[in-house]
Amino acid sequence: MSRIVYLDGSYLPETEAKVSIFDRGFLMADGVYEVTSVLDGKLIDFAGHAIRLARSLSELDMANPMPEDDLAAMFRELVRLNGIEQGMIYLQITRGNPGDRSFLFPDASVPCTVVAFTQNVPNLADAPAAKTGHKVISIPDLRWDRVDIKTTQLLYPSMGKMMAKRAGADDSWFVQDGTVTEGTSNNAYIVKGNRIITRQLDTDVLHGITRASVLRFAAEAQFIVEERPFSIDEAQGADEAFSSAASIFVMPVVEIDGLPIGSGTPGPVATRLREIYIEEMRKTAV
Amino acid sequence: MSRIVYLDGSYLPETEAKVSIFDRGFLMADGVYEVTSVLDGKLIDFAGHAIRLARSLSELDMANPMPEDDLAAMFRELVRLNGIEQGMIYLQITRGNPGDRSFLFPDASVPCTVVAFTQNVPNLADAPAAKTGHKVISIPDLRWDRVDIKTTQLLYPSMGKMMAKRAGADDSWFVQDGTVTEGTSNNAYIVKGNRIITRQLDTDVLHGITRASVLRFAAEAQFIVEERPFSIDEAQGADEAFSSAASIFVMPVVEIDGLPIGSGTPGPVATRLREIYIEEMRKTAV
Repeated sequence: MSRIVYLDGSYLPETEAKVSIFDRGFLMADGVYEVTSVLDGKLIDFAGHAIRLARSLSELDMANPMPEDDLAAMFRELVRLNGIEQGMIYLQITRGNPGDRSFLFPDASVPCTVVAFTQNVPNLADAPAAKTGHKVISIPDLRWDRVDIKTTQLLYPSMGKMMAKRAGADDSWFVQDGTVTEGTSNNAYIVKGNRIITRQLDTDVLHGITRASVLRFAAEAQFIVEERPFSIDEAQGADEAFSSAASIFVMPVVEIDGLPIGSGTPGPVATRLREIYIEEMRKTAV
Repeated sequence: MSRIVYLDGSYLPETEAKVSIFDRGFLMADGVYEVTSVLDGKLIDFAGHAIRLARSLSELDMANPMPEDDLAAMFRELVRLNGIEQGMIYLQITRGNPGDRSFLFPDASVPCTVVAFTQNVPNLADAPAAKTGHKVISIPDLRWDRVDIKTTQLLYPSMGKMMAKRAGADDSWFVQDGTVTEGTSNNAYIVKGNRIITRQLDTDVLHGITRASVLRFAAEAQFIVEERPFSIDEAQGADEAFSSAASIFVMPVVEIDGLPIGSGTPGPVATRLREIYIEEMRKTAV
């Protein structure tokens, strides 16, 4: 069944959704995005994604064409039109189509391009991968220095995912100056005793919406949260490791660079945090 | 007059040239590009651009859908259809449209997307800016670490051009670890006596096609070429400075961060190299 997607105010079949070759998203990666999950047909952690979207746009001097209420209404309409019970909604906003290519930003009269589409994932909450865990490899973090802005400059994360696949793994963790920044499309954590350790927030990591919720739930569950750098060596010696993102919630990591973490199977802390996250998010879904 | 542009084998009006929202060029900046100049209706330094295109594609594990002869024929048809005497041809090749969004590369059956369009610049050789020179500012080089691959991840260069404009300048030069890598869309040079100094080639700068020709002509004109890093301080104390790119040939730089370079007007070496470049390129245009 063909999806119905959103493009600049219209809902249309996915095969008809096209943008100009002069769109700055296509020519210059001049755009931002968000991925929001859906459970029980409702939006997960929606307010956080709307706030981060507004920040990304602001950092790039782009007007926000999608106030939170309009965005929620559009997302709900996509969920309805596509009958999504579990899955994701992808949103991308670019600086639009000025009619020609120039490094200079177009003037404010050029409207943004707004694109959104759903991805149906019937077993999102009950993902088989969460039961076996992810294997990750470490690769150098070659990305630009403002990955706190959620731009579509995703070539290297995509390459990183392919490097993982070719190595028989599921994902890559980026290493910068000897410590882990994050995964290709997720934040990275290790567990030592009752401490949960994840990279502090700055311009070198994405300020994960799922991360914020997971750390809040972890603190409520009496874990000590340490926001600091950790190395691959430290991770390989940890009790557990995991990743978080809107599309995977909390995902146990069972192997890093070929070495098993802890027992080499999903650990109790990651598994418990995943359960809490899904349970709490279902309560607050909108 | 509406341009005729090229998209995946067809020549069509620019307003009809659209790509899927699922094109990886749009979603992930998973694509490469080249800009080739046109003088006297002929292609400038074409072989160099075709070779670099093949290298960019190869570095990203993309097949080359445009062997040199096919590319030349397509470029010439665009020049003919649009009546271009002087100007540029922009080419972009992306990893195509797999029909959905995934960080994993699509399998080889998904064809690349190939886009090309002309920009008519009647005074390209006789550019007024070359007579007054460019003012540049320096900004930190925040780009990813493989800018030797000519990808469409151009958000930061675009931001850099805007920072320059807001500062009353024409362009920005990127500074990394205290030395200049290059300009937002050009290589950067300084002149001291009979020495021409420009950053050595590695993964931190674009391997400019125009740069290679300019350095060859400079050596033939008995200049000593030094490929090494230089600082903004050294540049501000140089006799001259200039930039090079397919779209500007050789462009004198007359001011850096508010300080005049040499006399504060286009210097004799940059002006002479520009003349030689245009003269020699006209001879070898195809």
